[in-house]
Amino acid sequence: MSDPTTPAAAGRPLDGIRVVELSSFVASPLSGLTLAQLGAEVIRVDPTGGAADVNRWPLAPDGTSIYWTGLNRGKASVTLDLRSDEGRQALRDLVTAPGAGGGILVTNSAGRDWMSHDALAAIRPDVITLELPGRRDGRPAVDYTVNAALGFPAVTGQVDEQGGGHGVGQVVNHVLPAWDVAAGLHAALAVVAAVRERERTGRGRHIVLPLDDVALATAGTLGYLTEPQLDGTSRPAVGNHVYGTFGTDFTTSDGGRFMIVALTTRHFHDLARLTGTREAVDALETAAGADFSTESDRYSYREVLAALFARWFSAHTTEEVARALSESVVLHERYRTFAEVVSDGDLVANPLFARLDQPGIGPYLAAAHPATFDGAHLTTGPAPRLGADTGRLTTGGSPA
Amino acid sequence: MSDPTTPAAAGRPLDGIRVVELSSFVASPLSGLTLAQLGAEVIRVDPTGGAADVNRWPLAPDGTSIYWTGLNRGKASVTLDLRSDEGRQALRDLVTAPGAGGGILVTNSAGRDWMSHDALAAIRPDVITLELPGRRDGRPAVDYTVNAALGFPAVTGQVDEQGGGHGVGQVVNHVLPAWDVAAGLHAALAVVAAVRERERTGRGRHIVLPLDDVALATAGTLGYLTEPQLDGTSRPAVGNHVYGTFGTDFTTSDGGRFMIVALTTRHFHDLARLTGTREAVDALETAAGADFSTESDRYSYREVLAALFARWFSAHTTEEVARALSESVVLHERYRTFAEVVSDGDLVANPLFARLDQPGIGPYLAAAHPATFDGAHLTTGPAPRLGADTGRLTTGGSPA
Repeated sequence: MSDPTTPAAAGRPLDGIRVVELSSFVASPLSGLTLAQLGAEVIRVDPTGGAADVNRWPLAPDGTSIYWTGLNRGKASVTLDLRSDEGRQALRDLVTAPGAGGGILVTNSAGRDWMSHDALAAIRPDVITLELPGRRDGRPAVDYTVNAALGFPAVTGQVDEQGGGHGVGQVVNHVLPAWDVAAGLHAALAVVAAVRERERTGRGRHIVLPLDDVALATAGTLGYLTEPQLDGTSRPAVGNHVYGTFGTDFTTSDGGRFMIVALTTRHFHDLARLTGTREAVDALETAAGADFSTESDRYSYREVLAALFARWFSAHTTEEVARALSESVVLHERYRTFAEVVSDGDLVANPLFARLDQPGIGPYLAAAHPATFDGAHLTTGPAPRLGADTGRLTTGGSPA
Repeated sequence: MSDPTTPAAAGRPLDGIRVVELSSFVASPLSGLTLAQLGAEVIRVDPTGGAADVNRWPLAPDGTSIYWTGLNRGKASVTLDLRSDEGRQALRDLVTAPGAGGGILVTNSAGRDWMSHDALAAIRPDVITLELPGRRDGRPAVDYTVNAALGFPAVTGQVDEQGGGHGVGQVVNHVLPAWDVAAGLHAALAVVAAVRERERTGRGRHIVLPLDDVALATAGTLGYLTEPQLDGTSRPAVGNHVYGTFGTDFTTSDGGRFMIVALTTRHFHDLARLTGTREAVDALETAAGADFSTESDRYSYREVLAALFARWFSAHTTEEVARALSESVVLHERYRTFAEVVSDGDLVANPLFARLDQPGIGPYLAAAHPATFDGAHLTTGPAPRLGADTGRLTTGGSPA
């Protein structure tokens, strides 16, 4: 936990930049939050009464959205009647106002003529707009539908039968909206890259970043869509094993669970040592004609090796296992719940977190930007009350 | 699929920037790839013979790593004996070489005195360094261990017992290395923000971005670590349901699986209409005293509602369900495998993908940067042969 009264480091990387965010849900609000942490002035615009995410769960006891306030920290809030000509003009004025660092719009409400890139560029030629639609064809989509169509749920939380078919008989959705997170960070990066370019050339940019293309590009880069092109097959479902190396989960005598990864030969030898299986592993290697100094063979024999190591875990308590692992080089963590992360004191002990007095939520430990810049975390104040800055920042606004 | 012979748009946002990347695995190579797509010259430096990821699975038939080549497209490759004074000097020379856009190092091999920020800043005071360690305390960690300690596997792929306890009796790892992806994008963003600042102020930056802090900050921002601070509880495991709204998976009469999300009241009414359950839903709403115009009540009654809707899905074929959904406003996708994404022709139909002739892999459809800039995707050439640019770019290098 940091002391929130410590003055921020002199200057932030994005000082002088002003971004208008017409957004909802995760991806575009996360881009705005990240830009605000890095020093930009971020103005979130919502329709009168709030967007569809204003009351999204989880909620605090008084009904305030933990979700909305978490994603909109450090921003200004403007509400406008976006069905009226006056409200639309106020949005255009806000985006195209003079100022070297202004002229930037991030939105997931793409495709409206009255706020299109061309309409804004007609007023301010160097405008930078970033649209974040669900699908490249303009149709809506959300993280969970994008992920279903892409293939990850078919290989999560299950193991393909030996030599059996591979399909979508079972599906397990991820819980983290990973594509929203990736899209939000890609959006912030694309905007800052375009700002850097504009400061050199004076040129604006029209950027379109579809959520489904973020997912496809990431899966393609990581190889998931290359294997099927080469041999027509998908990567198999391997349960909690890590594909291509030795890593899986083990259970202790008192029900603790550990994730173990032996990425290198050094890790692997130490795992064999601490589980007392060195001789058995060596005998297996010889008998099978395998070479456990290669990741390939450690992966190929993962089930035999895991069964060997599991005997030691199941014969020792969580405390004994944790101690032995901490004295080894093996990569490991005990599986925990979110509540345990908090009750174990991780947040209090970590300067990433600082006390935030959030109206409607109360004081809590809130995360800054995950990086330190010259040793300092970049944090922000609380989320605004919906519409709090409408009068200050616009002339055509309506109260929330 | 785009035509890769189309000339790139005139200029890219990061033209003139030169980044040295001393990296391995996913996060820092992904940051370099993304910077390269945006226009930076990126030089990946490896120890002689390659880093620990050089042969990582998946592999092409000739043994070339699909993974390594996918993440290192469009970069130059330099190999150095980093245990020798000459190799270390060559790395320092590469990072600190003159040039307004140079002086940038991204690395996950932090903590070495001879390449510390201070050592480099003593040569080039405006140097920007970004270190990406596994943990903030400097210890190594990987995506799968970070995720285990944070809480997501305890709420993935399972449903808590009604009123029962909540713990880590079951754990399901994610398959996508989501924290590596988020860390790589955060790293690219932090570097570009620092470049933008340096171009205005002349000031360098020492940035440290631990993988575990990326995960903690994201989970904190999304509210997962706020709920336990307010009432001591973790979010429950809800299987394939989407937390806080109505969304889950359904199975058709011939075994097809669909992910359905009814985010708005309009979506929800259309789902009731197409499944022929409007009267039953209305009767349930009245009898229960619920208000299905709120996300909260649609979520609270998710199991009853899903059971009602499931009868229609199980009575219709995949083709019938797909047709009916496509004529509705309900957010939906059919669950597919990675192989189906390819065999359905998604990549061929999408300008995000272009043919890439990758030595060792062959021609395949590779993804560009997921955004379009003024309508054009930003793509790169293939990955280099390991060490191909050592002679051209260094004087102290050794052959691979």
